[in-house]
Order: sequence, then C-alpha cells, then structure tokens
Amino acid sequence: MLTRGETKRARARAAEMLARAGIVLTPEERATIEVADCGLGQLERIGLQIVNYVNTDRYCAKELVLFPRQTCPEHRHPSVEGEPGKMETFRCRWGTVWLYVEGVATAAIKARVPEGSEAHFTVFHEIALNPGEQYTVPPNTLHWFQAGDDGAIVSEFSSTSRDEIDLFTDPRIERTPKIVED
Amino acid sequence: MLTRGETKRARARAAEMLARAGIVLTPEERATIEVADCGLGQLERIGLQIVNYVNTDRYCAKELVLFPRQTCPEHRHPSVEGEPGKMETFRCRWGTVWLYVEGVATAAIKARVPEGSEAHFTVFHEIALNPGEQYTVPPNTLHWFQAGDDGAIVSEFSSTSRDEIDLFTDPRIERTPKIVED
Repeated sequence: MLTRGETKRARARAAEMLARAGIVLTPEERATIEVADCGLGQLERIGLQIVNYVNTDRYCAKELVLFPRQTCPEHRHPSVEGEPGKMETFRCRWGTVWLYVEGVATAAIKARVPEGSEAHFTVFHEIALNPGEQYTVPPNTLHWFQAGDDGAIVSEFSSTSRDEIDLFTDPRIERTPKIVED
Repeated sequence: MLTRGETKRARARAAEMLARAGIVLTPEERATIEVADCGLGQLERIGLQIVNYVNTDRYCAKELVLFPRQTCPEHRHPSVEGEPGKMETFRCRWGTVWLYVEGVATAAIKARVPEGSEAHFTVFHEIALNPGEQYTVPPNTLHWFQAGDDGAIVSEFSSTSRDEIDLFTDPRIERTPKIVED
C-alpha cells in the first residue's frame, strides 16, 4: 500500500516527466494519475504510474510513466466471458523500456530483476523499445517491462482494459491501489 | 488526386510538425505518412495526414496531422457485419482543432466551411479541443473537424479502422488516396 503523501509525490514526478516529454494533461488528469505499487510497497522498484485517457467496451488508451528502473511486474490478460484477453500495443514515447515476453530467453537481459522477487519473473525474451518503437503483446501472454536509467514514457493502445482480472505471477500482488493516510 | 511530389512535400511538412511537438516516428513511419486529399485535389483546405500506428481487429491508434485551417470533411462510420460503427476518441496534442458533431448547432462556429463545399457540411455542434482535451465520437455519428491557424496534431484512439467504408457527405470524395507521377 501507499500513503497519500507517497501517491501525491509520485503523481507530481510523473506529471513532470510527461510535461518534459511534451505530453499535455488536463489539470484533472494530472490530479488523478494512477499510482500503482501493486500492493508491494516498493514503488520505486515495482509499480508504475498511469494516465487513463479512455476505456470503452471496445478500446482503451493510456500513458504509462515509469521512473528510472521501475518495473511493471509479470502478468497476463486472460480471456473473459468468451472474449480473448486484452491485446496491447506498447509504443515508447520517451526514454528506453525493455519489454519481456514469452519466447526464447535472451542470453543477457538488460533489465535487472527486482531483488527478492526473482521467483516471480519467468519470461525473458527481450524487446528493447526506444522512442517511436512499438510492440504488440498478444492476449493471454506473460509479459513484464522495466524502464532504463532515465525512466520511460510508453503509450498503451489496447482492447478494453479490465485491470482487476489481470493475472500476476507474483501471488503477493494486488493490482488495485490501496492508499492510506500518512 | 495528388502527385508524388505533393505527397512527398506534405509528408515532410507533417513530419516536421510531429517532430516539433516531440512526437517521435521511425524512419519507416516518416516515409509512409498517409496523405489523404479525399480525391478533391485541394489538400491545403480539405484532407489530412495520418500516421497509422496500429490497426487490429479490436483497436486502432493513429496520429492525425492537420495543416493550418485544413479540414477533415464530414463523414460517419456505419455499422459493418452486425458490429457497431467505428467509435473514435480524438485527443488534441498540439494546436487547436474544432470538432463538429450532430446536435444543437453552435451559433457562430470558429471553423470556416471550405468554399465551394458548403452543401456537404451539415452538422455544426462545435467542440473546441486544445492540447490535453479529448472527445469521443459515438458510432455512426456525422462529424468533421478543422485545425486552427497554426495547424493541429490529434491522437485518434478507436475501435478497428475500416477507412474504405466511411460514408462521406460529399459524394465527390474518394477516401483511398490516389497518387500520380509528377
């Protein structure tokens, strides 16, 4: 869980990164950036910040902001009510992000698996994304990603987002952010 | 129709606008920006430039580039094979764009209806979009838009794009670009 103060600071930091990249938010969007620590309480290392632009029953678009070396932990999007799981296209806008998906493991990966969580990272096929580069993750495919030393901003274009049914490899993870008073 | 030279110049101009806005393209994307004059041969006034990021059977994402006062002409996205028509979210990234949809006509609209095409613009409910502002157009709803005096860049998030079945109010329009040698 995160305290209200931690959430506020992470929001401000993400907003500053977005502004630096020339991505304009409304004041309301800035005030409601989602700060997801995945319930692990180590936001600097595991988690991400999200601007939810739109999520309809047909498509979804978000901006993902990753602090330096911050990691979105391994997960997949299962099928739901007969519909295939969420399909996602990640387009790097700023910085570098290393994306890992199922497939032949890359010999020496560039990301650093977060210490103490090694058991919960199992796919290591590396795709490096720099600004302008993108990759589409098929439904129900395990994936995780980590920003480089300067952090990263990634646009996510996808089918409908249903974050609450994402399946994380790490059973300790709770996707829905919990905020406590300082 | 457009000549190859006109297409090339419009691509270079759109690429420059995108770069100025901090939006990075790959060299391949830059070289294949879609220049759509809608078959009217008056690109400066009617048409638009498009970067197609991704178009799957579930979602689509594009960057739309409009030159100063350039107009995307009135059209709608009909239902297809039992599926509702394309739903689109327009998010302004740079400049100003005025979007017109069905509904109560705005008294004094800010866009200028292209001369000689007045009969083919019939909806005048105005939504002004500045950077960070967005609007979602429901399926099968007539809409058109025009950039302000500096041009505009608009991200389009949507369900699957099937440009070839768009229904334009102006019967002269051909959506699929035709390029002829200079």
